[in-house]
Amino acid sequence: MILKAVLLNCTLKQSPEVSNTQALMDIVVGHLEELEVECETVRVVDYDVKLGVTSDEGDGDEWPRILEKIKAANILIIGTSIWFGVRNSVCQMVIERLDGTYNETNDLGQYPLYNKVGGVVVTGNEDGAHAAAETTLFNLSHLGLTIPPNADTYWVGDAGPGPSFIEAGGQDHPYTLKTASWMAHNVVHLARILKATPIPPEGNTVPGWQPADCQGHHDRMPAGHVG
Amino acid sequence: MILKAVLLNCTLKQSPEVSNTQALMDIVVGHLEELEVECETVRVVDYDVKLGVTSDEGDGDEWPRILEKIKAANILIIGTSIWFGVRNSVCQMVIERLDGTYNETNDLGQYPLYNKVGGVVVTGNEDGAHAAAETTLFNLSHLGLTIPPNADTYWVGDAGPGPSFIEAGGQDHPYTLKTASWMAHNVVHLARILKATPIPPEGNTVPGWQPADCQGHHDRMPAGHVG
Amino acid sequence: MILKAVLLNCTLKQSPEVSNTQALMDIVVGHLEELEVECETVRVVDYDVKLGVTSDEGDGDEWPRILEKIKAANILIIGTSIWFGVRNSVCQMVIERLDGTYNETNDLGQYPLYNKVGGVVVTGNEDGAHAAAETTLFNLSHLGLTIPPNADTYWVGDAGPGPSFIEAGGQDHPYTLKTASWMAHNVVHLARILKATPIPPEGNTVPGWQPADCQGHHDRMPAGHVG
Amino acid sequence: MILKAVLLNCTLKQSPEVSNTQALMDIVVGHLEELEVECETVRVVDYDVKLGVTSDEGDGDEWPRILEKIKAANILIIGTSIWFGVRNSVCQMVIERLDGTYNETNDLGQYPLYNKVGGVVVTGNEDGAHAAAETTLFNLSHLGLTIPPNADTYWVGDAGPGPSFIEAGGQDHPYTLKTASWMAHNVVHLARILKATPIPPEGNTVPGWQPADCQGHHDRMPAGHVG
Repeated sequence: MILKAVLLNCTLKQSPEVSNTQALMDIVVGHLEELEVECETVRVVDYDVKLGVTSDEGDGDEWPRILEKIKAANILIIGTSIWFGVRNSVCQMVIERLDGTYNETNDLGQYPLYNKVGGVVVTGNEDGAHAAAETTLFNLSHLGLTIPPNADTYWVGDAGPGPSFIEAGGQDHPYTLKTASWMAHNVVHLARILKATPIPPEGNTVPGWQPADCQGHHDRMPAGHVG
Repeated sequence: MILKAVLLNCTLKQSPEVSNTQALMDIVVGHLEELEVECETVRVVDYDVKLGVTSDEGDGDEWPRILEKIKAANILIIGTSIWFGVRNSVCQMVIERLDGTYNETNDLGQYPLYNKVGGVVVTGNEDGAHAAAETTLFNLSHLGLTIPPNADTYWVGDAGPGPSFIEAGGQDHPYTLKTASWMAHNVVHLARILKATPIPPEGNTVPGWQPADCQGHHDRMPAGHVG
Repeated sequence: MILKAVLLNCTLKQSPEVSNTQALMDIVVGHLEELEVECETVRVVDYDVKLGVTSDEGDGDEWPRILEKIKAANILIIGTSIWFGVRNSVCQMVIERLDGTYNETNDLGQYPLYNKVGGVVVTGNEDGAHAAAETTLFNLSHLGLTIPPNADTYWVGDAGPGPSFIEAGGQDHPYTLKTASWMAHNVVHLARILKATPIPPEGNTVPGWQPADCQGHHDRMPAGHVG
Repeated sequence: MILKAVLLNCTLKQSPEVSNTQALMDIVVGHLEELEVECETVRVVDYDVKLGVTSDEGDGDEWPRILEKIKAANILIIGTSIWFGVRNSVCQMVIERLDGTYNETNDLGQYPLYNKVGGVVVTGNEDGAHAAAETTLFNLSHLGLTIPPNADTYWVGDAGPGPSFIEAGGQDHPYTLKTASWMAHNVVHLARILKATPIPPEGNTVPGWQPADCQGHHDRMPAGHVG
């Protein structure tokens, strides 16, 4: 059973240097590859992603290329830095763009991200990891992903400004290494389980949805988005 | 396959009247029972639960009775009202008491709440449902529970003070009814899936844990709590 | 000009030992006393404070004694520990009890906590200080308090479990010491300014309020609480 | 005494149509103008604001033009829509850009936004106003602004998707109208008070700062940012 993971690095940094968030994501990728998951990392700022809440904002918008990768994956990991105690603006923009998927379904009438598994990677020089992770995992669960136990890993320093992950030696921080491994293993465990036994389309399909051969005969009701 | 659910109503109300949160929880129970889940609702304020972060605070503490029910269940639903934009103090206290489970494991070395599935019910006269749900579901995922898609249901009125769930006719609110059904179905789907195929104890066991017949021979490392 | 500050220590600890939060609050008190502010620290768990959202829940409720101190003060500082990434249950309970003040006014028709100044002290072994502080300061602003610049001070360690404030030597942490001093100075600056020049009762009085000699002649509209 | 207010509309909408957030901001502007405040509204997406955390990201970055307006104002109002339960990505980006001000001071050694007053306007079709407002007001307080009582106004509909502010008739919603008026009055009251009596530069200046005629003789210590 081959699993695919897409990891979105939402760093603000537009230079080619390695971001701190990427450095922790690389540790997660190491675990995923050991577990025979095909990984693709996407640095969001390398794409021309427009602001918006649909799946294609036109005018050169490159979000559809990223969304296609997400739809083809079993696992979606979102990496973000912390600014002012919460996830950064690129991460927020990515979540906003995923709003567009509420207007689509999979072949069974569920939201298209059903049966995918989500995880989060957070780095910051201090405080805010819980806030960044909790909002993001919650949003993913609304979008249809399943959140396994211990689905986040993070590194932050102690109170106040200070060195970031790489400079601070976060790559050797026992708690962060433990949670990176737990997260990687658990997203894989759940992805395997859901690939073998998907969530049945009972009690969780978009109201008004009908199988493809019946479409055109109904007015779809508004999707249940949580705007 | 018989599944058990425990639903903790964290209302602040100490009178016997039906709380708004209970009224929405009852709708969820209706779905769960249709899906042949054995349900037990616990009104937390009916027990003498002490403040603290261990599993038994002594001195007449009745939390151990509630914890026993949680451990015996496949599904844990937490119901809370919103006060000042976030979950209420009883809900926060319940989560604090669950911190004690970080010092225990199941027979396989995972946290004892692994392979259980979590959901949340929120009511308030206005704004705050996302905050209450996201913090609670995130905490449950740290404690070992799996969070299925669309694992929360809530009702809130529009901006400002106003009638609460029952008085406002929230029991007929289409979005709330839809999400109550989705949540109930998805916690059951995941609980069935995980009962048939538990998360394997690979890469997610407490450091230092050893099988029972080896215990006493090691110093357990501190559990990975996130206090 | 004599100013009074009341500091509420919302520690969960019911033993007489010094809490970590108290240790940081003591640093703040040191600054306040140098600035000639009369300080009173209240350890909330030493009082029998009932759950609820009114100013007097009856049945031996000791919240009225604390509320009286708050009303007599110019400065209100709330200290809390972090559990599961947010403020603790005692702090949440205290905020819930302050909801009762929405049903009262000062002599000018404003909420009774107008012209008081708020600050927050947070300690935790890791992550969550921004979340704990931001929710609490926001709630205080809704209740009528003014929030000066840099109105919070906190200490947290780096990612994961670890020693708490006292054990970790947080009392020597430069960032925490700086922000404790800034916070103390700024709450005093603003309290002095507002004592000399109170916020005028223009455009901010409770709808339906009338001066005392006219009362009894109107039906007060519901206060603008944010439940 | 002439006061200036700058209102940043952080709508995601790039079309010229009136945004819902603007519609509520216009109500606030109406009050401010009655109180003789000179108002300038800036629609952030009309400027080429680069991602980043400094005050000038170069390469055509137009943030410096907006920052100049903020520095010249007494009052800063931030308007945002809610997406996925929190403030939107443009609002987050604006706050990130304000991080650059931690590296500057006013003439007295305080952060440059000291003695300015902050407020927030939030609209969304449902739930999330408290979260959006509390994070934003807290960030502003860290940056040096004073937050008066009842410094936010918002409109949200009841649970689930639904019409937005204008379509829903939010312009006639009593609670929103009341809080818009309270907020406008209170930011003006505080701005007047602080213009007459600024916060003295005692206990709140950036470590290492010295008056301009002494500069060049010291190494400024890192600013106390909260990244």
